[in-house]
Amino acid sequence: MRAQITSVNMTNSVDFRQYGREMVDYIADYLDNIADRPPLSQVEPGYLRKMIPDEAPIYPDKWQDVFADIERVIMPGVTHWHSPHFHSYFPTGNSYAAILGDMLSDAIGCIGFSWISSPACTELEMVTLDWLGKMLQLPDAFLSCAEGGQGGGVIQGTASESTCMALLSAKMRTIRQETALQPDRDQYEIMSKLVAYTSEYAHSSVERASMISSVRMRMLPCDEKHALRGKTLAKAIQEDKAKRLIPTFVCVTLGTTPSCAFDNLEEIGPICKDEGIWLHVDAAYAGTAFICPEFRSLADGVELADSFNFNPHKWMRVNFDCSAMWVRNKTDLEGAFQVDPTYLKHEHEGKVVDYRHWHIPLGRRFRSLKLWFVLRLFGVSQLQQHVRKQVSLAHEFESLVRTDSRFEIVADVVLGLVCFRLKGSDAQNEELLQQINKTGRIFMVGSHLNKQFIIRFAVCSDQTTSQDITFAWNAIMQETDTLLQNGITNMSNGEK
Amino acid sequence: MRAQITSVNMTNSVDFRQYGREMVDYIADYLDNIADRPPLSQVEPGYLRKMIPDEAPIYPDKWQDVFADIERVIMPGVTHWHSPHFHSYFPTGNSYAAILGDMLSDAIGCIGFSWISSPACTELEMVTLDWLGKMLQLPDAFLSCAEGGQGGGVIQGTASESTCMALLSAKMRTIRQETALQPDRDQYEIMSKLVAYTSEYAHSSVERASMISSVRMRMLPCDEKHALRGKTLAKAIQEDKAKRLIPTFVCVTLGTTPSCAFDNLEEIGPICKDEGIWLHVDAAYAGTAFICPEFRSLADGVELADSFNFNPHKWMRVNFDCSAMWVRNKTDLEGAFQVDPTYLKHEHEGKVVDYRHWHIPLGRRFRSLKLWFVLRLFGVSQLQQHVRKQVSLAHEFESLVRTDSRFEIVADVVLGLVCFRLKGSDAQNEELLQQINKTGRIFMVGSHLNKQFIIRFAVCSDQTTSQDITFAWNAIMQETDTLLQNGITNMSNGEK
Repeated sequence: MRAQITSVNMTNSVDFRQYGREMVDYIADYLDNIADRPPLSQVEPGYLRKMIPDEAPIYPDKWQDVFADIERVIMPGVTHWHSPHFHSYFPTGNSYAAILGDMLSDAIGCIGFSWISSPACTELEMVTLDWLGKMLQLPDAFLSCAEGGQGGGVIQGTASESTCMALLSAKMRTIRQETALQPDRDQYEIMSKLVAYTSEYAHSSVERASMISSVRMRMLPCDEKHALRGKTLAKAIQEDKAKRLIPTFVCVTLGTTPSCAFDNLEEIGPICKDEGIWLHVDAAYAGTAFICPEFRSLADGVELADSFNFNPHKWMRVNFDCSAMWVRNKTDLEGAFQVDPTYLKHEHEGKVVDYRHWHIPLGRRFRSLKLWFVLRLFGVSQLQQHVRKQVSLAHEFESLVRTDSRFEIVADVVLGLVCFRLKGSDAQNEELLQQINKTGRIFMVGSHLNKQFIIRFAVCSDQTTSQDITFAWNAIMQETDTLLQNGITNMSNGEK
Repeated sequence: MRAQITSVNMTNSVDFRQYGREMVDYIADYLDNIADRPPLSQVEPGYLRKMIPDEAPIYPDKWQDVFADIERVIMPGVTHWHSPHFHSYFPTGNSYAAILGDMLSDAIGCIGFSWISSPACTELEMVTLDWLGKMLQLPDAFLSCAEGGQGGGVIQGTASESTCMALLSAKMRTIRQETALQPDRDQYEIMSKLVAYTSEYAHSSVERASMISSVRMRMLPCDEKHALRGKTLAKAIQEDKAKRLIPTFVCVTLGTTPSCAFDNLEEIGPICKDEGIWLHVDAAYAGTAFICPEFRSLADGVELADSFNFNPHKWMRVNFDCSAMWVRNKTDLEGAFQVDPTYLKHEHEGKVVDYRHWHIPLGRRFRSLKLWFVLRLFGVSQLQQHVRKQVSLAHEFESLVRTDSRFEIVADVVLGLVCFRLKGSDAQNEELLQQINKTGRIFMVGSHLNKQFIIRFAVCSDQTTSQDITFAWNAIMQETDTLLQNGITNMSNGEK
């Protein structure tokens, strides 16, 4: 062991051993008692700036002061995503296993852009994504262990980046194909003809990916189950081909954000194959459920996809960021934007995976460690159990809503999301949601389905139990009673 | 406190309190003894897959087995970026302060895409980026605390993403401007006219950003100090305007990757201002040095930039990822790809910063916590001391190289990077580098300057001391002696 170079505050391991323990205990206490905090932060904009100095300190602050400021400054402004009363958005993963894996990643602190820059970082990622692909019963063509295959998995930061990378790769592939046919053709002229497709209920990041890559995107209408159907896509493609556009990319969503609907992948896949269109499957939230045999059929048709993505950091107990993406042909990603400066070259190049070619950033954390810790310390069985428990809690909530004739369920409850609304105006539903969130008891967000405002109730925390479902329902009923009583008064003044 | 729901392995806080302590001690031991490990991993491709099962376990593995596998499976494949003998690439930040901040971020595990999704996550980021901006003496226009200003800072994942976001924003701004002048003009036709500029020594991610955004980029030649000069840029702009192209974006590098050269910002800034071109400054590595008054003049001219970026996760003791970016006009970023689904709306919208508009991903970690911990637990003075120590060690290494007439220094040593080469062929230098790295004693990478292969020696670890500089130099001399002795034999068989 080396002598410590300095002994000032926080630069030596003796202090870290002590403060690290304090932080471990703080984390355990925080998660043990999180139910006592309001899930939605109740602060007003600008609250934090007033509580801390205008400038960084010249000399080190004391650890005790920094540590105390967690409760004083930070916690009032935290929206507690792991509270059992958090029912907003979709879940974001967390677990002690993931935290431990990420601590190790922070300590190693390598930047795994190429194989040589830390071989374990690349190789563990390849193997854990094979593990995960097998858990989801993905086609062999997506696995890096497949004999003679060109497929493989990679951890992206977010589903937004996965969609973006898939669309950018599809765009470059099409430009290469068109240029091969007509070498003189201008790439901007080709770009102006490209068209991508997704459903009207696809996540906002899909539309954003089209803006970033300058590929026009059509948001196609869905059926009564909020799903994109094959015939709708086929019609759009024929329209566009008639206009001499080049259909390039389809993003299918399995588990949409507004209502957890599933586009019809089995109808869409063959169309994409026939037309030579890149098919990307975004299963950001729902993908975790595919590890349960009873939910795997929701992914039927994935064998025709060019790329598939889901977020273990949503529902699979891995903390953000860990978005798993697989491609059938890695050269499509690697070939999209390859740049090879001398300072990144190494002797094994071309024979190993260099993940820097697979995504937009160059630098990358050792993110597979937390995934590996989670897969090993839970085992597949406990992760399946987690999915099943949350789906069953969603059905419990659904049953409670169905007991009350003032409400309606507006979408099939397939996984852990329940979409419902008060039978009434959008304004009433918006006000109800706002009032509920203001109580600080539970937190939900709204969405639009069939142009109507609806309320989303997502089962998010691993701590959520039946009691919490009842607690949530009581909070909703109480505010509904208040709203409808006041409403009678308001209505006489004209609907809000 | 809630009763623990399950008592199986690793889902309860009692286990975590114990395993967390073990991990804290492991981290401290690892960093205390890191000098004893070879800085460059010595494994062969494919080493890891053979060491672990082909599939994830069905039932939980024991913590003790997972913990033991860190040394058995992971560590042989780690390239130790924090070893005092790691002299490759540029440093990547680390410190106990940052690890503690990131542990807290993992525990909170919020996704800070909008203000409401965790107000502290947005507000601490705004304030710490103001702190940091003041430490660097950035113009007030970049700070979110400036009266009536439109500027502000944001933490991106990497400099690649910062450059990409700046270029994409510049592209969209120009398209909006051109369309305002001629509303009927096709956006792809406009895109086909856009042109961006950077130096031939800009980082590979700059060229990659141009590919991603489909904006052509000219890599302009540099002067004898490897710096881009104003007159070179002005000439290129005039050439392109004569061809009816639209100059859109300039990326200036302060501290290039090949040699830590500084483009002439004071010459380039006024040209960009006159021409209405977006000026982005990439100071990914060198930016940290600007907190020292004696190095601040290297950033002179930044007051004319539209955006500025440096990586606290490189040289400022913050662990990856933490790339700080500031913009003069946040509406340029926010307006680039704004998409507003109902499920992301909240009541304070428009009055607060919603960082989801500022970058490509939607989801984001609470990364300002680790930055805040580092700034407070070191204080500005200790971070300055860290920079000064590493620069002085680089000069020590430079002096050693200069004592040996077989070598030449090929670029000014300004900060912590020394570029040198054997006076001989590229092949000799490449072989020397390979032999040195194979010893496992130190790790360096090569680069090209003036079309010649050179060797880069970067001072990276906070543990590196004078003794390590001598150690490195001895390792280099020893392999040089061997090479030159063998070389005499090899030469007679023709130069390699």
